[in-house]
Amino acid sequence: MQNKPAISSTPIHDILLNRWSPRSFAADKSIDSQTLTALLEAARWAPSCFNDQPWRFLVCDRTTHLSAWEKLFSALGEKNQIWAKNAPVLILSLSMHDFGHNGKPNRWSGYDTGAASISLCLQATAMGLATHQMGGFDADQCKQLFDLPDTCSPMSVIAVGYQAAADQLPADLKETELKARARKPLSECFYLGSWEA
Amino acid sequence: MQNKPAISSTPIHDILLNRWSPRSFAADKSIDSQTLTALLEAARWAPSCFNDQPWRFLVCDRTTHLSAWEKLFSALGEKNQIWAKNAPVLILSLSMHDFGHNGKPNRWSGYDTGAASISLCLQATAMGLATHQMGGFDADQCKQLFDLPDTCSPMSVIAVGYQAAADQLPADLKETELKARARKPLSECFYLGSWEA
Repeated sequence: MQNKPAISSTPIHDILLNRWSPRSFAADKSIDSQTLTALLEAARWAPSCFNDQPWRFLVCDRTTHLSAWEKLFSALGEKNQIWAKNAPVLILSLSMHDFGHNGKPNRWSGYDTGAASISLCLQATAMGLATHQMGGFDADQCKQLFDLPDTCSPMSVIAVGYQAAADQLPADLKETELKARARKPLSECFYLGSWEA
Repeated sequence: MQNKPAISSTPIHDILLNRWSPRSFAADKSIDSQTLTALLEAARWAPSCFNDQPWRFLVCDRTTHLSAWEKLFSALGEKNQIWAKNAPVLILSLSMHDFGHNGKPNRWSGYDTGAASISLCLQATAMGLATHQMGGFDADQCKQLFDLPDTCSPMSVIAVGYQAAADQLPADLKETELKARARKPLSECFYLGSWEA
């Protein structure tokens, strides 16, 4: 149940192969604080341009910070709320617009925040947890609800928890959950020596 | 030599802990094609908004595509050229500006490309290779040299190869190479329940 192995033309590491974004989370399983810290440490050690670490993560744990969890949940799109309601932890990832060392615009801020975020997700996979990153949320609402500075952009909400059986999902989401994972063929995104699109 | 273990308050997975961006690469060790394919497969299976896969990777392998490697090398900043000259493979990562399914601007394009790029780097770590992502290159020059469309942005050049001893580096770079890895404390980038900056 944990994962649907991807189709890869050559073996890749388990945690990359098994990372997957399910929608069915176990509502009754919380995440202990040491596990949560490991996820954040994984993000912390991601690389970044000038080692600026332009990411910020606002961790909303339903067990310890219920009102924060409820605020972040309220900013999710309706379709995401249907399943994300069971995720014990919701994390808002944000990217700082400007470099810390000179205040100039950092064009890698989103790129680096994406790297830190997937590092968190991969660590979760390694620990038997599941994650699902969402772009479907109201970023402006998040800025208001959490009084965020104008110098950052909310990028994703990451649902974290333990995976549950697909059966608990509504029929249409269950169908999505059981579909095989898919990606474009290598040749469509990876070019050797010259641009081929 | 392979890695300088990071300081983490709680254990994280080896490939996240050991991924590191050295400057000393073995000039005489090329990367076989199956290994290279595994790196690309790791990037391919990264998650993305609407599964759009907005990343493109232009792989310049000195062994098989020398002129492409030389072109990409020529676009690197001088300080990066000093050490990147020994990397047998240079990969240009690019992000597509618009969603494939509706042509609208994709604000997660950089974020998703960052996730795919670090996936490639983590797979390299798992296979005993080293990677070093660079922002220090001329993106406009890359667009000209490789006749890239205006619908994409070059994001990074990723040096890939086998790590070599720091001794082969010039003195100042050797000093950098031997420094302990550093990150901000967890509390500066990771907040529980509310924005704390």
